[in-house]
Amino acid sequence: MTRTLITGGLVITAADEVHADVLIEHGRIAALAAPGTHEWTADRVIDAAQKYVIPGGVDAHTHMEMPFGGTYASDTFETGTRAAAWGGTTTIIDFAIQNRGHSLREGLDTWHAKADGKCAIDYAFHMILSDVNEHVLKEMDLLVGEGVSSFKLFTAYPGVFFSDDGQILRAMQKAATNGGLIMTHAENGLAIDVLVEQALARGETDPRYHGEVRKALLEAEATHRVIKLAQVAGAPVYVVHVSAQEAVAELTRARDADLPVFGETCPQYLFLSTDNLAEPDFEGAKYVCSTPLRPREHQAALWRGLRTNDLQVVSTDHCPFCFVGQKELGRGDFSKIPNGMPGVENRMDLLHQAVVDGHLTRRRWIEIACATPARMFGLYGRKGTIAPGADADVVIYDPHAEQVLSAATHHMNVDYSAYEGKRVTGRVETVLSRGEFVIEQREFTGHAGHGAYTPRSTCQYLG
Amino acid sequence: MTRTLITGGLVITAADEVHADVLIEHGRIAALAAPGTHEWTADRVIDAAQKYVIPGGVDAHTHMEMPFGGTYASDTFETGTRAAAWGGTTTIIDFAIQNRGHSLREGLDTWHAKADGKCAIDYAFHMILSDVNEHVLKEMDLLVGEGVSSFKLFTAYPGVFFSDDGQILRAMQKAATNGGLIMTHAENGLAIDVLVEQALARGETDPRYHGEVRKALLEAEATHRVIKLAQVAGAPVYVVHVSAQEAVAELTRARDADLPVFGETCPQYLFLSTDNLAEPDFEGAKYVCSTPLRPREHQAALWRGLRTNDLQVVSTDHCPFCFVGQKELGRGDFSKIPNGMPGVENRMDLLHQAVVDGHLTRRRWIEIACATPARMFGLYGRKGTIAPGADADVVIYDPHAEQVLSAATHHMNVDYSAYEGKRVTGRVETVLSRGEFVIEQREFTGHAGHGAYTPRSTCQYLG
Amino acid sequence: MTRTLITGGLVITAADEVHADVLIEHGRIAALAAPGTHEWTADRVIDAAQKYVIPGGVDAHTHMEMPFGGTYASDTFETGTRAAAWGGTTTIIDFAIQNRGHSLREGLDTWHAKADGKCAIDYAFHMILSDVNEHVLKEMDLLVGEGVSSFKLFTAYPGVFFSDDGQILRAMQKAATNGGLIMTHAENGLAIDVLVEQALARGETDPRYHGEVRKALLEAEATHRVIKLAQVAGAPVYVVHVSAQEAVAELTRARDADLPVFGETCPQYLFLSTDNLAEPDFEGAKYVCSTPLRPREHQAALWRGLRTNDLQVVSTDHCPFCFVGQKELGRGDFSKIPNGMPGVENRMDLLHQAVVDGHLTRRRWIEIACATPARMFGLYGRKGTIAPGADADVVIYDPHAEQVLSAATHHMNVDYSAYEGKRVTGRVETVLSRGEFVIEQREFTGHAGHGAYTPRSTCQYLG
Amino acid sequence: MTRTLITGGLVITAADEVHADVLIEHGRIAALAAPGTHEWTADRVIDAAQKYVIPGGVDAHTHMEMPFGGTYASDTFETGTRAAAWGGTTTIIDFAIQNRGHSLREGLDTWHAKADGKCAIDYAFHMILSDVNEHVLKEMDLLVGEGVSSFKLFTAYPGVFFSDDGQILRAMQKAATNGGLIMTHAENGLAIDVLVEQALARGETDPRYHGEVRKALLEAEATHRVIKLAQVAGAPVYVVHVSAQEAVAELTRARDADLPVFGETCPQYLFLSTDNLAEPDFEGAKYVCSTPLRPREHQAALWRGLRTNDLQVVSTDHCPFCFVGQKELGRGDFSKIPNGMPGVENRMDLLHQAVVDGHLTRRRWIEIACATPARMFGLYGRKGTIAPGADADVVIYDPHAEQVLSAATHHMNVDYSAYEGKRVTGRVETVLSRGEFVIEQREFTGHAGHGAYTPRSTCQYLG
Repeated sequence: MTRTLITGGLVITAADEVHADVLIEHGRIAALAAPGTHEWTADRVIDAAQKYVIPGGVDAHTHMEMPFGGTYASDTFETGTRAAAWGGTTTIIDFAIQNRGHSLREGLDTWHAKADGKCAIDYAFHMILSDVNEHVLKEMDLLVGEGVSSFKLFTAYPGVFFSDDGQILRAMQKAATNGGLIMTHAENGLAIDVLVEQALARGETDPRYHGEVRKALLEAEATHRVIKLAQVAGAPVYVVHVSAQEAVAELTRARDADLPVFGETCPQYLFLSTDNLAEPDFEGAKYVCSTPLRPREHQAALWRGLRTNDLQVVSTDHCPFCFVGQKELGRGDFSKIPNGMPGVENRMDLLHQAVVDGHLTRRRWIEIACATPARMFGLYGRKGTIAPGADADVVIYDPHAEQVLSAATHHMNVDYSAYEGKRVTGRVETVLSRGEFVIEQREFTGHAGHGAYTPRSTCQYLG
Repeated sequence: MTRTLITGGLVITAADEVHADVLIEHGRIAALAAPGTHEWTADRVIDAAQKYVIPGGVDAHTHMEMPFGGTYASDTFETGTRAAAWGGTTTIIDFAIQNRGHSLREGLDTWHAKADGKCAIDYAFHMILSDVNEHVLKEMDLLVGEGVSSFKLFTAYPGVFFSDDGQILRAMQKAATNGGLIMTHAENGLAIDVLVEQALARGETDPRYHGEVRKALLEAEATHRVIKLAQVAGAPVYVVHVSAQEAVAELTRARDADLPVFGETCPQYLFLSTDNLAEPDFEGAKYVCSTPLRPREHQAALWRGLRTNDLQVVSTDHCPFCFVGQKELGRGDFSKIPNGMPGVENRMDLLHQAVVDGHLTRRRWIEIACATPARMFGLYGRKGTIAPGADADVVIYDPHAEQVLSAATHHMNVDYSAYEGKRVTGRVETVLSRGEFVIEQREFTGHAGHGAYTPRSTCQYLG
Repeated sequence: MTRTLITGGLVITAADEVHADVLIEHGRIAALAAPGTHEWTADRVIDAAQKYVIPGGVDAHTHMEMPFGGTYASDTFETGTRAAAWGGTTTIIDFAIQNRGHSLREGLDTWHAKADGKCAIDYAFHMILSDVNEHVLKEMDLLVGEGVSSFKLFTAYPGVFFSDDGQILRAMQKAATNGGLIMTHAENGLAIDVLVEQALARGETDPRYHGEVRKALLEAEATHRVIKLAQVAGAPVYVVHVSAQEAVAELTRARDADLPVFGETCPQYLFLSTDNLAEPDFEGAKYVCSTPLRPREHQAALWRGLRTNDLQVVSTDHCPFCFVGQKELGRGDFSKIPNGMPGVENRMDLLHQAVVDGHLTRRRWIEIACATPARMFGLYGRKGTIAPGADADVVIYDPHAEQVLSAATHHMNVDYSAYEGKRVTGRVETVLSRGEFVIEQREFTGHAGHGAYTPRSTCQYLG
Repeated sequence: MTRTLITGGLVITAADEVHADVLIEHGRIAALAAPGTHEWTADRVIDAAQKYVIPGGVDAHTHMEMPFGGTYASDTFETGTRAAAWGGTTTIIDFAIQNRGHSLREGLDTWHAKADGKCAIDYAFHMILSDVNEHVLKEMDLLVGEGVSSFKLFTAYPGVFFSDDGQILRAMQKAATNGGLIMTHAENGLAIDVLVEQALARGETDPRYHGEVRKALLEAEATHRVIKLAQVAGAPVYVVHVSAQEAVAELTRARDADLPVFGETCPQYLFLSTDNLAEPDFEGAKYVCSTPLRPREHQAALWRGLRTNDLQVVSTDHCPFCFVGQKELGRGDFSKIPNGMPGVENRMDLLHQAVVDGHLTRRRWIEIACATPARMFGLYGRKGTIAPGADADVVIYDPHAEQVLSAATHHMNVDYSAYEGKRVTGRVETVLSRGEFVIEQREFTGHAGHGAYTPRSTCQYLG
């Protein structure tokens, strides 16, 4: 048995900031004690003086190796989880995909095969439903039983992932009975496809038109719609990657009415904007994702939502495609640019920068990046906090170190950084996953296969 | 040339209440004068002392002889327009229907053929779009040019009238360019069909389940959706037969934001409720229409909306089916009950009763029943007011007479009244259509074929 | 008996736009007729071809000869009503003032004496309550009986006009019983006085600080407060000179709830802004009025409110003080600048310009400037419309003429124009007051004493 | 040194629910450990199996021995804090009162004298400002410096505690600079006094009229007002004893806009209603407090607000007056009934019952009753949580025990219970204050004088 002791740090959780020593045994948090009150011995002692001791990040939205338009997201589970660890994230929840005409089981098996033995940190799965039918509805029960308790549906991407409102309602009704949580990509894809076609017909092919056709109002519309469908179904709903202020307003309206409606946003919407999409020489393609980046003034609504808890989670929607060879598929036709951006490594740092900038408190940083995603997706108790009995997924974070984000130094398998050159204050120093060192003093000491599949209970954020 | 003079009445328009004599020549209002200021002579003099002199009603939503589920609405243009005249309505706007796979032209021709030579009062047409495609979009321009300047789309009735959001957006975009006005039946039909199927599977076949599955939230959802689509298209939108308070709230929200969004309700939503749908012995079937009747407490929101101009028009959605032989088609399966109710004869009286009850002012009565529907659909100047130059569509209304509404005495070709036994104060005494007597002292003196097709300009309610 | 005939014009009222000839007899509108349908003869014929024939304007908010801080508003009833006529206004409602410790009767008598025999156009009075007590509450009944049916209270100006919330509630309760309409100047004067004192202590003495200390939030607060007090009293309330978008939002909220809450704005808030208050060399003093001018972006909310009927009336709050000798009293202390601006002559033209600019329809122009103020304050039927039996207060308005607003050409007794150099399209050509020419082809033909005191009924805008 | 060990319980904090053993040394939490991971020894071991281990309650709103209308609240600091301990509350924040014309210092000294040496649990003070002037504003700085960092102002009670809006603004401005938190009793007292006078004049003297004259709209009005004043001052504001749904709506509106606005409610508003005020035989007097109890339907809005964090704190406003001899002072005149109710002993149990009833989660129970009040008023870290270094104010709570609330068994010095006969699930078993037993297995083992005055830092809920 290895005992590890972390001394002298400021332990920050969603609720408390405490100067405490942390004792780790058997991969779990054994105890916390006020400094000077104990005489613990340990095999390894980490001096965390002047540092934060925080729960490892939980990134509830990643797409490793995801197929898109004939290519694949450039991070494998191996490279992606390693990069995540570098960024202070110790759990990811990735999306297994059902293919149309196939079962959930097949999709889930495929994703298990991709991840098994590859991950540096723990991982779990959501399931994307591409084809809601009677069989699939029954499979949902089974998946909840085996720890895949959340299901993503799309009002976007007709012909690919799109479900119609009847299908969405049926899936929500099912979730209302089995404790599953429906996640939605909320954009009116049918309307957007009309605008895409018209834009291309007008010769508007540059990346920035991606942002123009995917209108904020059409995100707000779909957000409102899935909320109403969930209300009819008597089910909760979690809206992924909220980017438009009008969509936030719909969430606010629903939550003011005490509906179990949840919203996630991503660092790209908080720190980037349509200004990036408009970068010349096709560089805008680097920032093509859906929902799209919005004009800069939307950011205030997102920060506001994070503060007032109208948005509860910040995930990355990490789905990297290299600029060379991948993003370039869309030269001359923005609709062919693979949708997605890298970010799994940057999330914890960018949100700490938000603390520095005064957007968030430290505790709220941990809440939206660790505690709530864990709780939302049935991992809390094990993940997302530092408390006796929890998995010892712990990050020693140096709040004073400065760093410059860059593709030259990041660990994600992608040839650009969306934040190239951005200077931030704060840096991960050491990362433990179930008590084992994955990053130690900014050296990667982990290995593929350490990370374990982690079945999830149902949403713990309710009731 | 026949000159008719109406003396001594209180002339009520949307804006003014004036004691004035009204002179009619050549089928038009020639002049109004303060009593005692003129020495007009006339061929016919109507003594309107103690009476109201009001513009003939404009019913912007009727379905004469409409096919539905293998049967037809029981009023022909002949019987229906005669009944309308009895009720003080002098113009109807009926809905021509495009059949899937057919052109608008074919549909419109069919409806012209049905109406031509049959009507007792003037009539015009909206066009229902069942199949929005490139050809249809082009035809819309032509129809606007020939006086059919409004187009109805359905988010309800998948497989029949349903258009998807892309189609709705395209039609709205077209309307934004040609001045057409998109009307929408706003209920989420895809979701409702799921609930219908589930209700029937549970053995819930009675008419009252019609009201339960067509949920208020699903009307609100679709209302919000069409508003957002219209906003994206830069087009106005007119929502027909609003019945749910949650839908009114969406209209209010949009109008507070100064969007060109309009709402219509119908007398059945103002005076009837799910209590009627729950009447025993299948009597509830008499009240099956869509959107459905709502619980009684929704009525306050509708009256509120009419007062605050969040709702602008009261039409009837007149679409009668006899209880015997027609409504009965749905015994054992509420989804097979023909949707629709009679009402074209009752609207002006019921709204006058609302004046008596204190819900509306007299001027607002005329505004929502005559002036605004005329203006909304491009008939103003000719219809909807009493002013020099306007068509002499005039009703002499006795505000003190009492009557009891009943199938035994009404003139609609349907075997029941939705308001059987209801006592109201106020009654039509005499009706002129373009200066000719259609009803004279409660005798029908009109004839089929007097009523003329009336091409419409585009919406005059805007700008 | 003089008969006057106006031919060939476009008669515009709040509800209709009709090409009609207008016959005037005995100072009243005798008849309207479609051109070519009559053979009327007249003593005088006005050719209004290509012109608008509109009701004379009703300016419901003027302060002629008002005492303020040791000086008097520079327009007397003689000069002010003459200027009003030049600007197409044929009725003003001025404010008689109760002095603290004195009766309403004394105040009203004083104002009658000022106006009697001086006015070029008809006039009426509101009453300002400075000292609500038992005696005053009883006097309110008497005043309603003699045609002074509206009472203004201030939440601003502590020590001068200020009433506390208990006094306001009592006055509203009284109004609820006698049909009176409470008008409120809604700014939190107690808070503003703190900010004024602090600003002056900081040496912030320029006119622009007048705009800074009278914060929009404090207008919104008081607006909300008087609405709640009115709701408790069961009384309607009319908020004068609304200038802040946050105050409009409160009105919208109240009206969405169907409360009898009304709002007035003024041309200065629609066309001017804090930019004017910041004009150098103390020129900003010309624009000092309360509520103050707001930053430019508030204008959109006001136009929106006028379109959606959350604001119902545009009055001038005409209260001119000469720059030289009067406004200058506040050099070195903005709080000593007499509050008020000239405008009674400019209102109809500025609002027509708003029609030209696309902010308003023509009918809405007449509604907010003529019909609604008449109806709001119990003058409708006689004033505010062109209909048989109404007073022949008629303006022939040339919508194509261009003019430049300037102190060099205006007729108000004040040494500056708030709109100096502004070019507008549209101009008054001829004005009749009860059938007599006051302005004829841009010559003043009226005389002091033609204008008559006009007792008012209670508010006709309700029910 | 005494070491105490609590084993086997479920430790519940605002953020976590953890099975952990808790070690106490020197009056503080020394450590928490997962059961079985340590070999701690202790002088005393508490077996908490099947029990909750929760932070002691923090009641941020009590009035021990408060003078009111010639009498005094019937609980002294001795009896009141003992009762608090019985109910699982280990810290109270009482209100020291400034008398008009006197300094804050005098008031604070008086309260210190009342409490010193009497309390069974720790206590702190807020300061009531009755007379805001320049001297008082300066004193506020001093008080913040010595741990009295919150100041209560009243828009109610003219002539007693009432401050006018200018005074409130000045105090808020001061708080914006020194970190103080302004608390407001938000009811429009000037308007209420008018209604009180009128009710009494109509002979409406029964206790239930207390609820009728203190209208919900007048609470909402004042709530809105203090929010706007705080916004102008750039200060946070905390609204005490929110009872009306319309007031909650104002808080929601403000918080949706990200304003630092906070709201407290009390158990009486959550569990009682105007039904109680209407109890016959003057029994309603038992429930006279201000803000008053509201109709039952307001409760849902309060629960909603607690769940959505539009309300953050539940305090008691404990201010007991015996029915006999005290409440009876108001027979024949409800306005003479001493305002206030007992409750300090019942809060934790009633809120646990809310958990049982499904209104709140367990963590939210602790958050609103312990963590947030501590954080709001600068006690967090020491009070409100169970974490290393915190004061060992700990309650062993039996969630399964049942009890019946009754004056016969309660420990407050008052002759009635507001919840007489109410059966609740859950009961305090043992209470530690700074590591010492105050209640041990339902025996009172504490003593007057154990409780220490606890200076507070400024609000920790912000930033």
